[in-house]
Amino acid sequence: MSAIHQNVSTSLSASTSTFLSHNNLKSLRPSHVSVAGRMSAVVKCVATPSAEKTAYKTDVARNENLAKLQAGYLFPEIARRRNAHIAKNPDAKVISLGIGDTTEPIPEVITSAMSKRSEVLSTVSGYSGYGAEQGEQKLRAAIASTYYAGLGIEENDIFVSDGAKSDISRLQVLFGSNVTMAVQDPSYPAYVDSSVILGQTGLFQTDVEKYANIEYMRCTPENGFFPDLSTVRRTDIIFFCSPNNPTGSAASREQLTKLVQFAKENGSIIVYDSAYAMYVSDDSPRSIFEIPGAREVALEVSSFSKYAGFTGVRLGWTAIPKELHYSDGFPVAKDFNRIVCTCFNGASNIAQAGGLACVSPEGIKAMHEVVGFYKENTAIIVDTFNSLGFKVYGGKNAPYVWVHFPGRSSWDVFSEILEKTHVVTTPGSGFGPGGEGFVRVSAFGHRENVLEACRRFKELYK
Amino acid sequence: MSAIHQNVSTSLSASTSTFLSHNNLKSLRPSHVSVAGRMSAVVKCVATPSAEKTAYKTDVARNENLAKLQAGYLFPEIARRRNAHIAKNPDAKVISLGIGDTTEPIPEVITSAMSKRSEVLSTVSGYSGYGAEQGEQKLRAAIASTYYAGLGIEENDIFVSDGAKSDISRLQVLFGSNVTMAVQDPSYPAYVDSSVILGQTGLFQTDVEKYANIEYMRCTPENGFFPDLSTVRRTDIIFFCSPNNPTGSAASREQLTKLVQFAKENGSIIVYDSAYAMYVSDDSPRSIFEIPGAREVALEVSSFSKYAGFTGVRLGWTAIPKELHYSDGFPVAKDFNRIVCTCFNGASNIAQAGGLACVSPEGIKAMHEVVGFYKENTAIIVDTFNSLGFKVYGGKNAPYVWVHFPGRSSWDVFSEILEKTHVVTTPGSGFGPGGEGFVRVSAFGHRENVLEACRRFKELYK
Repeated sequence: MSAIHQNVSTSLSASTSTFLSHNNLKSLRPSHVSVAGRMSAVVKCVATPSAEKTAYKTDVARNENLAKLQAGYLFPEIARRRNAHIAKNPDAKVISLGIGDTTEPIPEVITSAMSKRSEVLSTVSGYSGYGAEQGEQKLRAAIASTYYAGLGIEENDIFVSDGAKSDISRLQVLFGSNVTMAVQDPSYPAYVDSSVILGQTGLFQTDVEKYANIEYMRCTPENGFFPDLSTVRRTDIIFFCSPNNPTGSAASREQLTKLVQFAKENGSIIVYDSAYAMYVSDDSPRSIFEIPGAREVALEVSSFSKYAGFTGVRLGWTAIPKELHYSDGFPVAKDFNRIVCTCFNGASNIAQAGGLACVSPEGIKAMHEVVGFYKENTAIIVDTFNSLGFKVYGGKNAPYVWVHFPGRSSWDVFSEILEKTHVVTTPGSGFGPGGEGFVRVSAFGHRENVLEACRRFKELYK
Repeated sequence: MSAIHQNVSTSLSASTSTFLSHNNLKSLRPSHVSVAGRMSAVVKCVATPSAEKTAYKTDVARNENLAKLQAGYLFPEIARRRNAHIAKNPDAKVISLGIGDTTEPIPEVITSAMSKRSEVLSTVSGYSGYGAEQGEQKLRAAIASTYYAGLGIEENDIFVSDGAKSDISRLQVLFGSNVTMAVQDPSYPAYVDSSVILGQTGLFQTDVEKYANIEYMRCTPENGFFPDLSTVRRTDIIFFCSPNNPTGSAASREQLTKLVQFAKENGSIIVYDSAYAMYVSDDSPRSIFEIPGAREVALEVSSFSKYAGFTGVRLGWTAIPKELHYSDGFPVAKDFNRIVCTCFNGASNIAQAGGLACVSPEGIKAMHEVVGFYKENTAIIVDTFNSLGFKVYGGKNAPYVWVHFPGRSSWDVFSEILEKTHVVTTPGSGFGPGGEGFVRVSAFGHRENVLEACRRFKELYK
C-alpha cells in the first residue's frame, strides 16, 4: 500500500500547483515572455532560474473551461496533503480514512478468475483481442439479472465500463455543452468538475462558491439530506447519488418517487449513481429503476469498486433503458453506444472475467462479506463520534460517516485531525459549499486502523 | 475467438441502425409522436407494431454534434457486415483481415506477470486499490526509458492509459470545442469522429464527404502518402499517425522535420499517433520526439495493443513534454493531468503489471517476436497482391497493406472480396474520402488464415 501512495505522491508533483487558482500562475511568469507571436516565439527566458529553458508557446488557446476550474481534483489534493504531513512527521503512523480507497483483499473466487483469464491469453484457444466496446455479452447479461431482475433492464441496456468516474465523463460528452445540470450539494466532485470541463457552466462565483449555471440542490440534516424540490430550478440533467457520497444518506422509496415525478414534470434526465447500493441496510431502493416510471427519465451508473475492492482493477457499468429518449424521440442509449464505440474500447478483458466471477453465486456471497466488513467499520466510527457528542449522519446505508462540526471550516477540522491524530479524512466543503462544517470519515480501512483512528479521535475530542 | 465475435454481433444490434443517416430515422417514426410537450408526453404509440410501447420523451435536446455523425463507427459496421455474411453463408470459413484485431497469444512472460498480480490482489500485502490516475510510477519510468531514451521525455511526462482510442477522446476533451483540427486523409476514424462529437466541426458536406472545419490533408501514392503542406490550411491541432493506419506508410525523418517546422510556423500542436512504431523496418523515426524541436509542438499517443496483443487487455500511454505550452504559456501537460484525474481513474492495475513485463528485457524480446510474426504475414500479403498486378502500398513499416483498385468504390471491392472469398477487409473510404478506391488488408491473423486468404485472393483476381 505504501508503494502505491508513494506513487501518488511523486506523480502528483506536477499537479500540485494547479490546486492554486490558475490565474496565480501568470504572475509567476516574467511578463516579457507572455508576448504572443508566431515567429518570435523562441525566446530565452533569462529571468527564470533555469536559464536553459526556452519559452516557446504554441498559438493554441488554452481550453477556457479548464481555466474555470478553481482547484485540482479533490482526492489528489487530499493525497498531496497527506504526503506533506508524512514528510513533516516521518515517524507518525498515518491512517487514511480519506479518499474512500478500499483496503481489503479481493475474494479469491474473483482473483482466481482473473488469474486464469490472464493465463489463457497466452494460449491460441484462450486468446482474445478486441472485445465488444459495450462489454462481453455474458457479463452484461449477468449484471442485468443480478442487479435489475424484474426491473425491465435487459442485457443490451448494460454498458460495461472501466468504472463510474470514466462513465460520468463519457455521459457529459454524450450530453454536450448545451445542457444544464443539477447536483446534490454536497456531492461527489466528478459531476461538477466534468460539467465545468465540458463547458456546461459559467465561471466560479467566489461569493457563493458555486459555478454559474449549475443548480446546487442543498442536502442538509434539516431536510434529511433530500433536496426541497419545490425550490429547485428545472435543468436538463439531474445528477443524483444514493446512497450518497459524501453524506452517507440513502433516499427512501417515497423520496425517489418524488424525484422521478419531478424529473418527469420537467422533462429532465436523472443520472443516478448507485455505486454504494450494496451497502443499503434498510428498504431504501438499490436502484432508481425500482421506482415506477423511472426508465423513462433515468439512467444508472454503478461500479464493482466498493463491492469487490475493484478500485484498482477498474470495472463498472451504466444501464440505459430503451425507454429513455431525447426531446426529438431519439433513444439516449443509441447515442451512448456511439460514444462508447468511438471514445472507448471496452474494459480490460481480465477485469471483465473478474466481474463475471463477482456476480456468480459464490462471488455475490463474497462481496456481501466484504461489504459487511466495511459496514462493521462504519458502525465503529459512528459509535465513536456519537459517544463524543457529535451529530453524526450516514453510516447506515453507506460506508461514509458525515460528522458535523457546526460553525467550523471543514478544511480547518481536516487539518486539526491530521495534525493531532495523523488520521486523513476528507473536508466536507470539498464536495460543495453545502458540505462546509462537515468532515467525511471513510469506513474503508483495516480493522486495527479503524480502531486505532477511533482511539485517537476519542483522545482529541474527549 | 468465435465467442468474442458472437458478442460483437449481438451487442451491435442496437447500433446497426445508427449506421444509416440519423435523419432517416425520423421518417420511420409515426409523426404524431414527434410532438414535443412536457405534460402530454406519455402517448401510446398505436401506429407501431409493438402497441405496448409508450412514447414518452424527455425535454432534453439531443446533442447536436452526435446528430452530425453520418454513420456508426467504422469497425462495428465492418463486424456487422461480417456477421451478416456469416448468417447468410453459415458453412463458409470466414477469415478476418479487417478490423486490425490481433490474433496471436500474448507472450507468457507478460501473461504470467498479470496472473501473478491478479493472485496477490487477494492477499493483504499484495492488495492495492486506487492507483495514481497517471499510472504506476515504475511503469511510467520504464516506458520513458524504453521508448524515449535520450529524447528528453521523462517519467512524469508519461500518462498511462487504457489505450490510444480512449486517450484520443480525452485529448479532444482537453482541447475543447473551439480548436480547429487537421487529419491525414485517409486516417484512423477516431480522430474525426471524436472531433465531431466534441463540436469542433461543422456539418458533413455530402458533396465532398468531409466535415466542415476539418482540414483533410490528402495522402496519396503521388505524394508518397505525405501531405503537401504548402496547400494545408493552418489549424490548432494536427493529428498525424506514422507508421500510418490505414496506408501503412511511415513518414521519413525529412518529412517529419518538415511537419514539425510547419507546426512551429503555425503555432500548432501535433498529436502524433505512434501505435505502430515497433513495426518500422527502416530508419524512419519511431517517435516524433526524434525530431529536434518536436517537444515544443507535439505530444505522442501510443499503445501496447499491436506490440503485445493487448487489444483486449487495454493499455497505452500519452507522452506530453513539459515544453509544450498553450498561447498563454500554460503547460498542456498540466491541463491533461487535470483531465486524467477528473475523467479517468487509471488503467487496470493488472494490465499495468502486464505493461511492466512488456518493457522488461524479456518482454521486449517477446514483443519483437510477435511484431516479427505479423511482419511476415504482411510480406505474404504484399507479395500476393504484387503478383496479381495490383499497386500495393504500405506493409514495410506497418501491419497494413493498402491495395489500389483504381476507379472502383472501396465498399464495392470490400463486398466483392467478402462475397467471393469470405475474407473480411476494410474499405479505404471508411478512413476518409482520400481512401476511396483502396482496400486495407490487415496482417493480423493466424498464419494459416493469411495463407488461405491469399490463395483465395489469387483465385478471385488471377
